[in-house]
Amino acid sequence: MRTIHSSDSHVGWDREIPPVAHVAAGDTLEFEALDASGGQLGPEARAGDVTTLDFSLINPTTGPVAVEAAEPGDVLVVTIESLTPSGGGWTALIPGFGLLAEDFPEPALHGWTYEPSLSAPAAYGTVARVPLRPFPGTMGVAPGAPGLHSVVPPRRVGGNMDVRDLAAGSVLRLPVEVPGALFSVGDTHAAQGDGEVCGTAIESPMRVALRFDLEKGVSLPAPQFETPGPVTRHLDADGYWVTTGVGPDLMSDARDAVRAMIDGLVRRTGMAPEDAYMLCSVCADLRISEIVDAPNWVVSCYFPKLVLGG
Amino acid sequence: MRTIHSSDSHVGWDREIPPVAHVAAGDTLEFEALDASGGQLGPEARAGDVTTLDFSLINPTTGPVAVEAAEPGDVLVVTIESLTPSGGGWTALIPGFGLLAEDFPEPALHGWTYEPSLSAPAAYGTVARVPLRPFPGTMGVAPGAPGLHSVVPPRRVGGNMDVRDLAAGSVLRLPVEVPGALFSVGDTHAAQGDGEVCGTAIESPMRVALRFDLEKGVSLPAPQFETPGPVTRHLDADGYWVTTGVGPDLMSDARDAVRAMIDGLVRRTGMAPEDAYMLCSVCADLRISEIVDAPNWVVSCYFPKLVLGG
Repeated sequence: MRTIHSSDSHVGWDREIPPVAHVAAGDTLEFEALDASGGQLGPEARAGDVTTLDFSLINPTTGPVAVEAAEPGDVLVVTIESLTPSGGGWTALIPGFGLLAEDFPEPALHGWTYEPSLSAPAAYGTVARVPLRPFPGTMGVAPGAPGLHSVVPPRRVGGNMDVRDLAAGSVLRLPVEVPGALFSVGDTHAAQGDGEVCGTAIESPMRVALRFDLEKGVSLPAPQFETPGPVTRHLDADGYWVTTGVGPDLMSDARDAVRAMIDGLVRRTGMAPEDAYMLCSVCADLRISEIVDAPNWVVSCYFPKLVLGG
Repeated sequence: MRTIHSSDSHVGWDREIPPVAHVAAGDTLEFEALDASGGQLGPEARAGDVTTLDFSLINPTTGPVAVEAAEPGDVLVVTIESLTPSGGGWTALIPGFGLLAEDFPEPALHGWTYEPSLSAPAAYGTVARVPLRPFPGTMGVAPGAPGLHSVVPPRRVGGNMDVRDLAAGSVLRLPVEVPGALFSVGDTHAAQGDGEVCGTAIESPMRVALRFDLEKGVSLPAPQFETPGPVTRHLDADGYWVTTGVGPDLMSDARDAVRAMIDGLVRRTGMAPEDAYMLCSVCADLRISEIVDAPNWVVSCYFPKLVLGG
């Protein structure tokens, strides 16, 4: 299998970035993905290192790869064949970033080491054990609009979607907007909950094997995917603690639900609020429980009990 | 076990509604819950019946029950001991109501019959089979503020939360705002997805056994609950089809994701869009995949493949 090395990486999306490789439909490629800091942070990093990050290097993606015969209006089908995790990573609170940025103005960082075989959950000190399910946070193709587009927001052509179920076996469909599609991948995570609430997951470099296929002339409004099986059985066995936010704004509801979950975790375990927030980001799920009983919606934060030992 | 009959029901929340029963902490009561139409619709109903609904009768709740020694500032703990479903129900599109009300201006209705033992999924014609997991859509206590409050929106004291995981075995915690708490229950559903996107689930009368306990002097900002085990294993075995909405507004993102799912179901099966929308409401889940990659968030709609035969 051909490998695209992380030396062939770029920051941001631009249709003018020349492809580093060409593939045909049906090909599988391996990509070396850097962590979201581009190698600036690792399992030995400290909170102070967050304050000296060079943000121009954040979220590099490996690629782009040109797919033969891909044309605007096609769909690029990306099968996530396998991930080979590195065994180390980090989760951080970055000032100004994250769902509760106003509540957590100070930097924080937790370094992780874990079994690359994924045979055991990753320990968070002695307080928690997080089951792992690695995936690339960022997979996308070049936007049709010219110029350099920030890598931070996801968009119609994918990108930094941070969808935790784009794990091994899932099949992602992306609308193609430029000839050759120009696909790149990065921002690999060893685990993340729905929402990625603190803004970082278990950020961890890894290798990713992806197979490319094409569907010609299929219109897609936004990324779609399918999973080959269940998506929560690695952590749902003991059930969940759930907090809710109830009100007329989904964003405020989500904040309220996560704040209540952090309070509950702190009360239950004595951990620091910063640790509870980072744990929510790596294993708790934000769900929209109801979105029709006007004027109030319910957003729920599901924390798997198993992570704290049931 | 004492039963509170559905003749003891009310529409809307008001601290002045006199209790129909008194219980002590530790007691279990059975409630007869009407469906959300208050008996106006059943499995034999037609779309035309939606247009003649008397909305003043919508969403009756059985109760209220006064809990001895409950005081404002306490938490009422409600354990959902068991549900005894009736075997019949309905799902409807009600003009002006639901996440995609603008796309679906016409009424529609699907009548359901199912095994009350829940030994088999409920058939949706020949196109789909929906695994059932019954729960009460509405459980709440009287708000402290005087006057009659609409039963439609959920609020701090619970009410029409439509949280599909408040199923048998779950334990709900509600903040008490009036002496005696004044608890009521209704709006029982045989199945619902996260979001209840069309505004109705499998609306089905049933009996509900609930145990009441009190926690004194515990402050809760909003309802919380815990589940005794996994919440999706009845339908996740074959994985999911997933559509996304990507953009700066969570509500628009949710609409985009559901619209894309309806389009996909129609294309895949040939079913009518109205049927796809109602099926999403009873078995597809809205999740917030990421809420931190400003300015764009990702809301995903997860449809369990098993419902269409994998």
